[in-house]
Amino acid sequence: MNIELKEGEKIDIIPGSTFKIIQNRGRFSYGTDAILLSSFAKFKKNSKIIDLGTGTGIIPLFLCSRYEISKAYGIEIQEEVAEMANRSIKLNRLEEKVKILNMDLKDLPSIFEAGEFHVVTSNPPYMVGGGGLVNKDDNFKISRHEIACSLEDVVRIASYLLREGGKFFLVHRPSRLADIIWLLRKYRLEPKSIRFVHPKMGKAPNILLLMSMKGGKQELKFQDPLYVYGEDGKYTDEIYKLYGMDVK
Amino acid sequence: MNIELKEGEKIDIIPGSTFKIIQNRGRFSYGTDAILLSSFAKFKKNSKIIDLGTGTGIIPLFLCSRYEISKAYGIEIQEEVAEMANRSIKLNRLEEKVKILNMDLKDLPSIFEAGEFHVVTSNPPYMVGGGGLVNKDDNFKISRHEIACSLEDVVRIASYLLREGGKFFLVHRPSRLADIIWLLRKYRLEPKSIRFVHPKMGKAPNILLLMSMKGGKQELKFQDPLYVYGEDGKYTDEIYKLYGMDVK
Repeated sequence: MNIELKEGEKIDIIPGSTFKIIQNRGRFSYGTDAILLSSFAKFKKNSKIIDLGTGTGIIPLFLCSRYEISKAYGIEIQEEVAEMANRSIKLNRLEEKVKILNMDLKDLPSIFEAGEFHVVTSNPPYMVGGGGLVNKDDNFKISRHEIACSLEDVVRIASYLLREGGKFFLVHRPSRLADIIWLLRKYRLEPKSIRFVHPKMGKAPNILLLMSMKGGKQELKFQDPLYVYGEDGKYTDEIYKLYGMDVK
Repeated sequence: MNIELKEGEKIDIIPGSTFKIIQNRGRFSYGTDAILLSSFAKFKKNSKIIDLGTGTGIIPLFLCSRYEISKAYGIEIQEEVAEMANRSIKLNRLEEKVKILNMDLKDLPSIFEAGEFHVVTSNPPYMVGGGGLVNKDDNFKISRHEIACSLEDVVRIASYLLREGGKFFLVHRPSRLADIIWLLRKYRLEPKSIRFVHPKMGKAPNILLLMSMKGGKQELKFQDPLYVYGEDGKYTDEIYKLYGMDVK
């Protein structure tokens, strides 16, 4: 299928798959966090899933490349990147299965019933508010700072969308852990499984992956940590596998 | 000073110090958790400190061996071990500085004003309620299960006792992390610093050390992880140091 590329765009292969994705270097491209989250997310076949703040659409595309999914939605407030994600969906002929909706996630209750989804994923902005060190480029601002939505908005909407027992997969920064747990509990999303990603062994984690379950029982399971670099300064085997590369 | 020992008791040296402590093997003896917490607790000179559920008195004794403390209290509901801890205090001639109070920590507001303390420490029972696998020995039950007090009691009382900016050092199980953070925030103890203890590299943590601050700003700092065993199957250097042993 021929898809028109705009200036600065290129087509990449989604790690470990034959799926394609359009990226625009310097403007809209996905990061390691999205790949880590996609790989962390485990759920049943034929789930109905939704990704809040989907950007390039990497998470729904990655998950569709790995799982049989009944229907996937990606929500993105920024028109330009939502349009680019839509072209990536077409490029993979997934228009029937994956829908990119260019809208504010806070408005989702006007189009979806409560409890319609089995799975919610989100790689939301990490930085509190719009203050402090904000990139000059507005796209960066919205993707990285809590301008268009707060963490509480994301959690509240995730809880609204999920059925009882449904799973919410979140990637975020460890420094926000207390906020995250507080908000999840406030909205009846019980933290069930957590994994910390460390730059290397012996160093504090810089990424957290957390699965919470709507109405889940109170017990949090810790997964073994993931180290990005080994003591030899190279990626660890797990990171190589994650990116679909042959293990060194 | 001559201190009478009861059947089954013996005198040990507190790691890294010349301080002595009475233990009763099989009935009342301190664990690694108490040593980890004592070492994790950092605070200013001349602080007034209190340890909730002090058992053998190891935490106040350990802290007095390391820091200049203005006054330390250890609260213990079980009469037999409180009496034993008292003898350990006398053994070290610390009667003026350290007081063991044999009472229910829930009654502390009747003897202390709110905000009297700079530092609270606690190595509370880990297991929820008294159900499930409960040891036949009642001493074990009370020390390990939330029978005499719940985690919420400990957090509520810690918050009552602390002044604004005062620090609460807690050791607990990672599986209770969501409960812990939820309760700390509920009682205005903001989680500020966390350290996970892993049996070894690459394995999930089995102990968590957490410092929260009364009325603190919202940001949680992760310390580098602590590994108990190295890849050679021996204790790591940090554990050796913690126990005051020469590094291998």
